[in-house]
Amino acid sequence: MTRAPEELARTLAYRFQDPQLLQAALTHRSAGSRNNERLEFLGDAVLGYIVAEWLYQRFPQAREGELSRLRATLVKRETLADIARGLELGDYLRMGAGELKSGGFRRDSTLADTLEAVLGAILLDGGIDACRACIERLFSRPLEEISTREELKDAKTRLQEYLQAQRLQLPTYQVLQVSGESHRQQFVVECRVAAAQQATRGQGRSRRRAEQAAAERMLEQLDDRG
Amino acid sequence: MTRAPEELARTLAYRFQDPQLLQAALTHRSAGSRNNERLEFLGDAVLGYIVAEWLYQRFPQAREGELSRLRATLVKRETLADIARGLELGDYLRMGAGELKSGGFRRDSTLADTLEAVLGAILLDGGIDACRACIERLFSRPLEEISTREELKDAKTRLQEYLQAQRLQLPTYQVLQVSGESHRQQFVVECRVAAAQQATRGQGRSRRRAEQAAAERMLEQLDDRG
Repeated sequence: MTRAPEELARTLAYRFQDPQLLQAALTHRSAGSRNNERLEFLGDAVLGYIVAEWLYQRFPQAREGELSRLRATLVKRETLADIARGLELGDYLRMGAGELKSGGFRRDSTLADTLEAVLGAILLDGGIDACRACIERLFSRPLEEISTREELKDAKTRLQEYLQAQRLQLPTYQVLQVSGESHRQQFVVECRVAAAQQATRGQGRSRRRAEQAAAERMLEQLDDRG
Repeated sequence: MTRAPEELARTLAYRFQDPQLLQAALTHRSAGSRNNERLEFLGDAVLGYIVAEWLYQRFPQAREGELSRLRATLVKRETLADIARGLELGDYLRMGAGELKSGGFRRDSTLADTLEAVLGAILLDGGIDACRACIERLFSRPLEEISTREELKDAKTRLQEYLQAQRLQLPTYQVLQVSGESHRQQFVVECRVAAAQQATRGQGRSRRRAEQAAAERMLEQLDDRG
């Protein structure tokens, strides 16, 4: 059932100097003592670092809690297993007979671990720059998805998520004033947060826009407070 | 109270191209919005990676669980705070008045976070090689201590720790045979582990040595099983 590792190396667009490293990365612990568990340890660590660095650069305004949350999304088991499936990693995996029979090569955890081991093998074989390039290729879709999703988030959502992450009470919004004729109304909304000293205000042509403006100010205030 | 960051840079034996990065790394969140929380996120990640790589190379025989355990020891809060104290990091920290009053610059968590932030700043300023060199300098003592401690560990201890890490039952040792005259006795000991198919045997001039030999064989057997 196992395909030749060279084929995987082509899919990865990475040429191993030491093909035995790739071989080891594709060896499940059920298949022998020269297995991929140590490489997985290394791959997990380098992936955590590369993704952290990428997020740090990509989201210069994001707070630490937000960066941690985004990283957790990117390196979670399901994301890794998806990428592994895209590479058809299961086809290359060497397993013991028992694991093979029980379909271990289809398990999320096994696929995710194997992907990490492959990254560890590339790190050892080609160094950190080769590994970074490979991670950026493999993760390009989830990285893009996260970027789009984060940029589309409005201020109210970001404020809510920020407060939730800090386990603080959620904000309340109150319309203070509506002025102007019905086709050109102007709203003033106040945003209150228990953890913030001052309420903030926002104006807009609709209640929603005024709320967004008030939430944006609140985020700035919380940011200044540090 | 805060000393000039240039002095710290000298202690670190690292020259910042962008001194503002070091400045930010030394700014506690209580002191303003350009604080060290994002750098801490980055530093934590790069430290995890560098230490993992170091352990991987240093202990070619260690299993994944053991590498994880060793890493946890090296990057735990207390270890980081100790290193931070060695650098007198607390003297350089910029904090809000409240934190300062309550002695925040002496807290383990604050010192550990600040050290991570400084590592993040070095990564951004000088790249991964400069950061690796700095980590190896700063952590030279705990790294050495761990090496010595691990090498001194006997087979019985390693077997016990391995089984505990896997949440398996602990081994039992039984003397099967004592032969020879009293001044030249020879012991044969059997080691049994519930998770292993076969018992292993060891011989030696003392009961303890025979046990160590049996434990060593058991480790090999478990290793082969993968």
